[in-house]
Amino acid sequence: METKTSLKEDFEVIMNGNVTSPVGFTAGGLHCGIKRRRLDLGWIYSDVPATAAGVYTLNQFQAPPLLVTKESIAVENKIQALLVNSGVANACTGEQGLTDAYDMQQSFSKKLGIADHYVAVASTGVIGVPLPMDKIKNGIAQSGDLQNQETERFEKAILTTDTCVKNIAVQLEIDGKKITIGGAAKGSGMIHPNMATMLAFVTTDADVAHESLSSALKQVTDRTYNQITVDGDCSTNDMVLVMANGKAQNKPLDENHTAWPKFMEALEYVSKSLAKQIARDGEGATKLLEVQVKGAATERGARQISKAIISSNLVKTAIYGADPNWGRIVCAIGYSEQPIQPDKVNVSLGPIPVVENGLPLHFDEEEATEYLQQENVYIHVDLQQGEEEGTAWGCDLTYDYVKINASYRT
Amino acid sequence: METKTSLKEDFEVIMNGNVTSPVGFTAGGLHCGIKRRRLDLGWIYSDVPATAAGVYTLNQFQAPPLLVTKESIAVENKIQALLVNSGVANACTGEQGLTDAYDMQQSFSKKLGIADHYVAVASTGVIGVPLPMDKIKNGIAQSGDLQNQETERFEKAILTTDTCVKNIAVQLEIDGKKITIGGAAKGSGMIHPNMATMLAFVTTDADVAHESLSSALKQVTDRTYNQITVDGDCSTNDMVLVMANGKAQNKPLDENHTAWPKFMEALEYVSKSLAKQIARDGEGATKLLEVQVKGAATERGARQISKAIISSNLVKTAIYGADPNWGRIVCAIGYSEQPIQPDKVNVSLGPIPVVENGLPLHFDEEEATEYLQQENVYIHVDLQQGEEEGTAWGCDLTYDYVKINASYRT
Repeated sequence: METKTSLKEDFEVIMNGNVTSPVGFTAGGLHCGIKRRRLDLGWIYSDVPATAAGVYTLNQFQAPPLLVTKESIAVENKIQALLVNSGVANACTGEQGLTDAYDMQQSFSKKLGIADHYVAVASTGVIGVPLPMDKIKNGIAQSGDLQNQETERFEKAILTTDTCVKNIAVQLEIDGKKITIGGAAKGSGMIHPNMATMLAFVTTDADVAHESLSSALKQVTDRTYNQITVDGDCSTNDMVLVMANGKAQNKPLDENHTAWPKFMEALEYVSKSLAKQIARDGEGATKLLEVQVKGAATERGARQISKAIISSNLVKTAIYGADPNWGRIVCAIGYSEQPIQPDKVNVSLGPIPVVENGLPLHFDEEEATEYLQQENVYIHVDLQQGEEEGTAWGCDLTYDYVKINASYRT
Repeated sequence: METKTSLKEDFEVIMNGNVTSPVGFTAGGLHCGIKRRRLDLGWIYSDVPATAAGVYTLNQFQAPPLLVTKESIAVENKIQALLVNSGVANACTGEQGLTDAYDMQQSFSKKLGIADHYVAVASTGVIGVPLPMDKIKNGIAQSGDLQNQETERFEKAILTTDTCVKNIAVQLEIDGKKITIGGAAKGSGMIHPNMATMLAFVTTDADVAHESLSSALKQVTDRTYNQITVDGDCSTNDMVLVMANGKAQNKPLDENHTAWPKFMEALEYVSKSLAKQIARDGEGATKLLEVQVKGAATERGARQISKAIISSNLVKTAIYGADPNWGRIVCAIGYSEQPIQPDKVNVSLGPIPVVENGLPLHFDEEEATEYLQQENVYIHVDLQQGEEEGTAWGCDLTYDYVKINASYRT
């Protein structure tokens, strides 16, 4: 049962919405035995082949599943299903890894009775370990079982050190047709996209031209997924996939359609929501940190500066300690490699101005500490050198981050 | 009493050597009241004006003392004394900060009876707080007191969250003259040079041409100070200064002197030693991590890759947990932005090969864990694509790093 809430400009957020909120998508997941207990194999299926686009990690050790998915989408810019395993990343696995990724793809396409290249595959987990193909094939055999058909099971099956599932869906009207966009993601460690050990899957029942969908995804990725960081590490397996199955029967969307900006806005909202959910659930995180930079000469510059601040271990520990240590913020702005004018920089911690024209302001330390103790912390920077803006999301750096990573084998 | 030990190629390391091991240098320190109890004002003095060169942070919020020092050295490429305070960085302090830095310089030059521009100044500590000039002037008044004249007092006075002093000296013979090079440094937080919140001071009694000294310092800095990282943050106040007072009465050294490579080697050794001491004493660190990359196409590439590995929070936490998690090392190589061939990369943890041609090797996990429990951990990478090498130094990321930075105000 979906209830609509909170009117956001031209679209509505669907309460408890997810990747199967759009018409024609189903999803599920099961435990095939890669992990000890938790679900570790999940899928999304579209009734009909869906126009697809992807963005992939820039890490030079790109994992085999990414190669297989990229190649498959390239055949006719469509996929119909997606199979993801967690626990083992199938990265640094050489020829065997590639063979296994194809095998995983083909086992699922056979099970579904669709063309091989209609199946995208993704893996996340430990690097350098071969996929346990017998377990995965066993899992695929059970993927049709009714008790496994539940979207939340998909959302759970793709997680690694995440502590919660990540989902969202929005609805809008285009050409009198109701269009829905849904998403699911996993994050937690090695999060510093460009891309980052992050998987995000977006579904929509809109009919969208492939080139437009592809360029929309790239633009949106730069402003959302690529603007989050948990620990500065960009992984071997990151990808974002979008599937548009056209079941809403709208007039095909492209950049020339009058409703294109509306669609882009909704797609960006879904992506931003997933990105923020990933950042908030960063390993060991207790807070979501949002850094907004305005007054920049270029949008790229604004994004780079917001990312430098959000990536600073010193800022992240200060936020954890609720310490209004603006010096560390200013320091990060200064080393971001974007030209700035130090004597024009303004900084606020939420509603509290702490730096004006590069100089410290007197402020109530207690009030600032209280502000920083909240679960959502905003840092605002005004560079006063232009009109462009950029935002980045991250989290605090805590004892638990160290604990998780001193023992978990990624 | 200086005893010589360990023959290193063309020079000898002096046991308990420091910045006053070279002829004609004295140093001292005292508590002037910026910090609660610990020493916070230190100086180095040369009997005669010394040829000087410096390298400075690239952070755009460069602190006023750096401007004053740079400008002063530029007058005649010489300084005779150096005054450093810790506790307050005099950064983001605007016009007042610049006035204070000049005032600090001039108070000390007057006390010493030398030209203003013969005094270099440096500050380290909290950002955005004005220098307590009355305390500093009071301290300067007492800087001549006999009980304050001790090199270790200088070494202590420049520290912030460091847990130990950092020093080194080496001796070599050039033109039949005994030449000594000594050094002191402070590090600990915001260490990710280019430069980094790091101060290093090198003294020598060699007679060295200014241009040669300056270019030597730049070269050496790129291979040593700029190759360490504690937390990825590059501060507002970093500087490295070298003073050469000529008291050894050697024939002036420059690039054309046959002994120049010998001098460079000794200078690099001193700088590398200080850099390693800083990395080892990184905030919360329990281990010194050294990453050696060879087989690179360029030296710059090798350095960048070694730096990417040493900067990875995931590598640093794995080293803390003694987890032979080579996947994180490979991942860092992959996102270093230096072109590599994934299927040619070899990685060893100390003596234990773990990756060959981009693929995992079987190794004894227990043996690897035992190796990583040592206090000095080496990671060796062979890219097999050229002849160039680079090394970086860092430390593990621990609970204590979070503890220190969630509460300490830098």
